[in-house]
Amino acid sequence: MNIVLDTLGGDNPAAEIVRGGLLAADAYGVGVTFAGDEQLIKPLLPDNPKLSILHAPEVISMEDAPAEAVRRKKNSSLVRGIRLVRKGESHAFVSPANTGAVMAASLFGLGRIKGIERPGIAAVLPTTTGKRVLVIDVGANTDCTAENLFQFAMMGRVYARGVMEVAQPRLALVNIGSESHKGNELVKKTRAYLESFPGFVGNVEPNHLFGGEVDVAVCDGFVGNILFKAAEGGVAITTSALRSALTSQSLYKLRALPLRSGLRRFREEMNLARFGGAPLLGVRGITIVAHGHSDAQTIKNAIRVAKDAVDCNLVHRIESRVHEDVKSTTTLA
Amino acid sequence: MNIVLDTLGGDNPAAEIVRGGLLAADAYGVGVTFAGDEQLIKPLLPDNPKLSILHAPEVISMEDAPAEAVRRKKNSSLVRGIRLVRKGESHAFVSPANTGAVMAASLFGLGRIKGIERPGIAAVLPTTTGKRVLVIDVGANTDCTAENLFQFAMMGRVYARGVMEVAQPRLALVNIGSESHKGNELVKKTRAYLESFPGFVGNVEPNHLFGGEVDVAVCDGFVGNILFKAAEGGVAITTSALRSALTSQSLYKLRALPLRSGLRRFREEMNLARFGGAPLLGVRGITIVAHGHSDAQTIKNAIRVAKDAVDCNLVHRIESRVHEDVKSTTTLA
Repeated sequence: MNIVLDTLGGDNPAAEIVRGGLLAADAYGVGVTFAGDEQLIKPLLPDNPKLSILHAPEVISMEDAPAEAVRRKKNSSLVRGIRLVRKGESHAFVSPANTGAVMAASLFGLGRIKGIERPGIAAVLPTTTGKRVLVIDVGANTDCTAENLFQFAMMGRVYARGVMEVAQPRLALVNIGSESHKGNELVKKTRAYLESFPGFVGNVEPNHLFGGEVDVAVCDGFVGNILFKAAEGGVAITTSALRSALTSQSLYKLRALPLRSGLRRFREEMNLARFGGAPLLGVRGITIVAHGHSDAQTIKNAIRVAKDAVDCNLVHRIESRVHEDVKSTTTLA
Repeated sequence: MNIVLDTLGGDNPAAEIVRGGLLAADAYGVGVTFAGDEQLIKPLLPDNPKLSILHAPEVISMEDAPAEAVRRKKNSSLVRGIRLVRKGESHAFVSPANTGAVMAASLFGLGRIKGIERPGIAAVLPTTTGKRVLVIDVGANTDCTAENLFQFAMMGRVYARGVMEVAQPRLALVNIGSESHKGNELVKKTRAYLESFPGFVGNVEPNHLFGGEVDVAVCDGFVGNILFKAAEGGVAITTSALRSALTSQSLYKLRALPLRSGLRRFREEMNLARFGGAPLLGVRGITIVAHGHSDAQTIKNAIRVAKDAVDCNLVHRIESRVHEDVKSTTTLA
């Protein structure tokens, strides 16, 4: 298996991203093609036939308008990396670049799965039970229709079964109350679509999402992104309150050290959960979005997510499932 | 000063709510009128001329359709309590009942402030700096226009100045990125309205909300409610992870006890922040929404919020400010 890693476009220098790719190659036995500036990458690679370079030095930055940049910067690591996947020379693409640009390059380069109007970014949250919950969409689409959300539900279910290995995923609609009449117009309309969806358990409020009661939670990308960032804020303020409690009481200062490292690990996990590698579901290929702040560990994790998606033949699974489900949406609509 | 307390409609029995009212009367020196079932309330009240009963035993439950229940149940604590405020016999109304019903009763009973299309519920979040940030709307309106959000901004600013005593509130729009082109259609349109708003600092992502960088954050009620509940989830999963770390390492079990109580207090504060008392801004009177789960302490806190709003003459302040600001919105629209 070969995975293309975009070494440009994130907040960290290429060397940090390359290091993540090397860690992953070592840990998971995958081949890695490093897309970016050959001059920067070459000195960092050991002599190993499974590691290669795709020279594509143009950078698409966070400030670039996504669609335009993708059309214009033909020699960017993003555009050329995706092309490798389309040609079948690589199995998946992992990038810490501008999310909008990764999405645009994937849409243009790989195309949509037939029957899917909009791809969605899926990401996992930790829960108190140790299980994880998949939230889709967490930022690809800021304005959605009920049909979009229904399709996110279908794709999320396929991912939960195929990659997360949950046999019968419980699926819920992210909402501000558990009662069926609650919510905004979009949610109310979507609920009608989902009533007969396999495993649909109704609404889930974000505070209950962390209790492990559901496996897949569906929302529009604006709400999903707000949800993740607010949860992250809740984690941060709690760890911060605790840290000051620990440092203010000298009695506990030293004794609490292991707790502090535990907390730091947990906080990192929340970040990993958020952006360690979020698959873009609905395009005809595997694209994994990594956070712009990704360090080597995060990149390593994102490559594992890519490998799992390839291993379970994710795109084919979505294609075959969607074919059936889209027919039923059309009947409802 | 007299405040009407709705003793019916929350999840807790009337006795718990009454206890909260007595605590507040004692702590803040306000008169309290207990609206509800006289038979239940009377035995709980000490002989004190500042405490009175409004016999209004009909209950509006969480299941009732708000507007219809308010029209039909004329003898409910909610409808009759609000009437007392409208007649000027009481200064504010505090209720742990169905939020939709409190909103409907306030709208019907008190009317809207001229120039305000939709009232919004404002609530405070703690930050790592110890300051608080006001978020409006956290659940009154699930579908909003840019005009609604602009009006929330105006009212939030008045509240921050008058009640929170922030001389020059920094105001931001809740969004999924800091860049001005980010967001859904509603947010982008609202941003254009807010560009020249006094103290406007741009977008705020929910994870940055807890850093104390802004004083007032504006969003639609669906997003605001999601934001609060997700933050609460982040707090809950962090405290839960910590609790298990503390109990699994026997070495730290006893020594960590003060930490555990610190965490519990913090978690309670997050709940208090959420619903200890959230003013419904935009109606012609003071209505404070308390969470359905409110216990005596939460009710006491909600009554303090009501008192602060009365003390600063909040309704009059909003009326005079809105008059000017609405004119500028109209020009923009």
